[in-house]
Amino acid sequence: MTQRLCRTFQTAPVAVASDDTAKYLRSGLTASGFQAPDWLVPDLEDGTAPAKKEEGMENLLALLPEYAPEFSGEILPRIEWAYDAPATTERGHEQIDRIVENAGEHVDGIVVPKVGRVGDVESALSAVADAEREYGLPQGSIEVAVIVETARARSDLREIGALGNGRSEDGSDTTARLAGLVFGPVDYTAELGGRSRDGDRFEWPALLEALSNEASANDVVAVGGPFDRLFAERAGVSFYNGSAYAEQVEREAAVGLDGSWSLHPKQTTQANRIHMPTPDELERDVEKIERFAEAKASGTGAVSIDGQMVDEATLKNFQNTVWTARVIADRHPEQAEAVYDEALLERARSIELR
Amino acid sequence: MTQRLCRTFQTAPVAVASDDTAKYLRSGLTASGFQAPDWLVPDLEDGTAPAKKEEGMENLLALLPEYAPEFSGEILPRIEWAYDAPATTERGHEQIDRIVENAGEHVDGIVVPKVGRVGDVESALSAVADAEREYGLPQGSIEVAVIVETARARSDLREIGALGNGRSEDGSDTTARLAGLVFGPVDYTAELGGRSRDGDRFEWPALLEALSNEASANDVVAVGGPFDRLFAERAGVSFYNGSAYAEQVEREAAVGLDGSWSLHPKQTTQANRIHMPTPDELERDVEKIERFAEAKASGTGAVSIDGQMVDEATLKNFQNTVWTARVIADRHPEQAEAVYDEALLERARSIELR
Amino acid sequence: MTQRLCRTFQTAPVAVASDDTAKYLRSGLTASGFQAPDWLVPDLEDGTAPAKKEEGMENLLALLPEYAPEFSGEILPRIEWAYDAPATTERGHEQIDRIVENAGEHVDGIVVPKVGRVGDVESALSAVADAEREYGLPQGSIEVAVIVETARARSDLREIGALGNGRSEDGSDTTARLAGLVFGPVDYTAELGGRSRDGDRFEWPALLEALSNEASANDVVAVGGPFDRLFAERAGVSFYNGSAYAEQVEREAAVGLDGSWSLHPKQTTQANRIHMPTPDELERDVEKIERFAEAKASGTGAVSIDGQMVDEATLKNFQNTVWTARVIADRHPEQAEAVYDEALLERARSIELR
Repeated sequence: MTQRLCRTFQTAPVAVASDDTAKYLRSGLTASGFQAPDWLVPDLEDGTAPAKKEEGMENLLALLPEYAPEFSGEILPRIEWAYDAPATTERGHEQIDRIVENAGEHVDGIVVPKVGRVGDVESALSAVADAEREYGLPQGSIEVAVIVETARARSDLREIGALGNGRSEDGSDTTARLAGLVFGPVDYTAELGGRSRDGDRFEWPALLEALSNEASANDVVAVGGPFDRLFAERAGVSFYNGSAYAEQVEREAAVGLDGSWSLHPKQTTQANRIHMPTPDELERDVEKIERFAEAKASGTGAVSIDGQMVDEATLKNFQNTVWTARVIADRHPEQAEAVYDEALLERARSIELR
Repeated sequence: MTQRLCRTFQTAPVAVASDDTAKYLRSGLTASGFQAPDWLVPDLEDGTAPAKKEEGMENLLALLPEYAPEFSGEILPRIEWAYDAPATTERGHEQIDRIVENAGEHVDGIVVPKVGRVGDVESALSAVADAEREYGLPQGSIEVAVIVETARARSDLREIGALGNGRSEDGSDTTARLAGLVFGPVDYTAELGGRSRDGDRFEWPALLEALSNEASANDVVAVGGPFDRLFAERAGVSFYNGSAYAEQVEREAAVGLDGSWSLHPKQTTQANRIHMPTPDELERDVEKIERFAEAKASGTGAVSIDGQMVDEATLKNFQNTVWTARVIADRHPEQAEAVYDEALLERARSIELR
Repeated sequence: MTQRLCRTFQTAPVAVASDDTAKYLRSGLTASGFQAPDWLVPDLEDGTAPAKKEEGMENLLALLPEYAPEFSGEILPRIEWAYDAPATTERGHEQIDRIVENAGEHVDGIVVPKVGRVGDVESALSAVADAEREYGLPQGSIEVAVIVETARARSDLREIGALGNGRSEDGSDTTARLAGLVFGPVDYTAELGGRSRDGDRFEWPALLEALSNEASANDVVAVGGPFDRLFAERAGVSFYNGSAYAEQVEREAAVGLDGSWSLHPKQTTQANRIHMPTPDELERDVEKIERFAEAKASGTGAVSIDGQMVDEATLKNFQNTVWTARVIADRHPEQAEAVYDEALLERARSIELR
């Protein structure tokens, strides 16, 4: 768990085949309520067709100054990059340059896909820091999140995660800071040759555990992969596949990922809600914190509450719930008001967190 | 699998709010039959409230000389320690000192919680070795088991496990030997931010596989984490949650953990039983060893027994069963007699193990 | 996924107690259709009894010149080796020598079991390269596959996998190339002490993920472990346990293993079939590739096909299906003809793969 809100990582193509080629980018930048992603990722990579990439870059540079200042979350464009395709990575360098030069003050970071071993990630971090210097942005103002979607990146995950701690206090760094590890299951499954006989892809549970662990060990954000079966069909009716997506997000929350990938405003709404404590959960955990405090005052180290042995360790889990609810209430008061009653929120606010 | 018996790792608070503050510590030290844990862990950390820790230490130092000489298992007090809280670790150093100075000959090891990266574990091993020297105990007489419950420790698990092999033959070591890796799921889940929506915590199966592997690679003991939902309630009746605990212990046995954590004498009884071969299992494996020996004598490398292809590799699994039953019969004859008939035990004893 | 066909890894004892001691070896070397394994592994290790090993070696050296030239797959004998038993490893060195001296041109590699840490694997690679030089074979003509079946090998899996890339372009290598990582669950479970209470062994899913990943990161083949409950009995009738084996192979395909271990021609048939795209799967993926190509031409980066968002990443998974079907059609035309109709195969052949 990271002390940074990233319940949702929504990618949006920067240009699509339409009269209004920027329509998905604009709707991401102007979304409100539960449809507003914590991280918006304008996509210059696979989400935008090769023939539309130049127009997409122009859309991005035109819309960022207009909408970014009012956007409630963070903005991190995804560029092109591939450890095994130098021409693609060269385009990525140019894209970093153009974004930082023309809209550097409007982006919080860059998302770099298809990284290979740790050296490849280091070169991406350097490229971003070089552009910061070149265009006079404050050092460290633009971070990097990488998509973990190759066997080499998975193999080097421990070393890659450690780049989250790479920045020194004295400002002498020559690379950007790694801010996030994001899973890319589709490319990853293709690299490993995982078979999808019935349309279901393998879920890579051990990778998700490792991703969550290395993110927490280095204080970077961990995000799950896209759920691409957006619509299901059964007995002649096609419908939004909301149950299957919600189940994936719930599994990601259980393993400690900070957030989930979204391809659609409905997915953003669901992931924002699922990664937010429910009222029952918040009330349960607030109450256990209060009851444990009483027990501790009377000299008890561990106390049984509703059949559960509660001690200092259990307490930290309850505090996570409270912390998350409070941060959401600060950043997105309209979301908190829609879900919690005021009295509960007050109890949550009055708890002392470490 | 380790050639050392640790089916149960029972923590007991050293002082509780009660007229007899040492009651749980004393009941652990005097338990008999299946209630006697293989490893008893007097708990100076989270199980004992801050206000009771000094009294707990006095209880521990008073009771060890009285009961430890007759105790059938091993005794390893858990001290305070935290990779991210120097004041806590400083208290841990003092606790190591007091225990080794005043009761060093009565303890087999020290349990160190909340260790971080491998360097933090090395400093714990040094602290114990320093105390041994300071108070004139034989070098290596006090070992260390660590609780793996932080993202950093999980990240460095391979290097931490390798400290199990750190002691040289010539006695020139300056650190204690790592003797065990114990999972701490509650703190771990809090660090990673794993969500518990319905009260069930994520089970971290990939971590358990790695813990079992690194323990076996370095000949140290591997132990699962506490099951804290001691009691369940359903339809108005509250009861000991024995089925859910037994299922956890069975999963831990399947993945090759040597033992399970116990918070209660009933849990100790269950874990001692589950980590002991059943009579059917022992008979099945003894018989397969006997039949394979006959087949091998007639020139067959692999033989089909009850539909299973049995070869030298399969045999080792059967020998594990026999080894475990025999060690229990040696250490706890009353347990073996309660479970196996004498004829079966004789067949098990007559098998030649590597 | 590796660009090398190894759907099946069939071990065959080199000598059994029978009038015709070479019968299983000969039947492996002469198998046809779906019974022909992609990799045949004449077994000098656990599959052949100690008293039969010398006769087995003679069988192997006699039959290879006769049958190997016509064999449709690759041949990799398994020798004896054990990281913890120097006498066994010494026999392994002698077996490598005899095979390379007398039949080096008829084998594609050597399978080395029970390797320990990465240094032990390196010494196996050196032993094979030494024999190549000694007997004048082209450098690199004999590769090595190792059985991952010890805690130490699992601990060093990343470094062991990297030996797949160890060979330099200029031919200056002094070691053989690692060509495959094969799981050995029976020895592995015994080392870790995994309990099998009801006869089912733990499946080690996190290890399988790591095996698949490190194989893909280093372009070596990954193979699952043997399924030893060949026959089942229920209600008085014993039968080939085909459903349970097929389920294991399907799980292995999902996690991206290239192939599965076979102990029997029926298992070979099943694994060859399961690791081959079904006609429905091939048709589905060919069609999605064709439809995505149309969409891309019209300026769309991601397109919804049957409810699934399809982009460049998804496409790679479909291309894996096409690649596998085409390689099988090249190597084993009789297998492809038995499964695919000619029109579908033509569509698959007309797709451009990277």
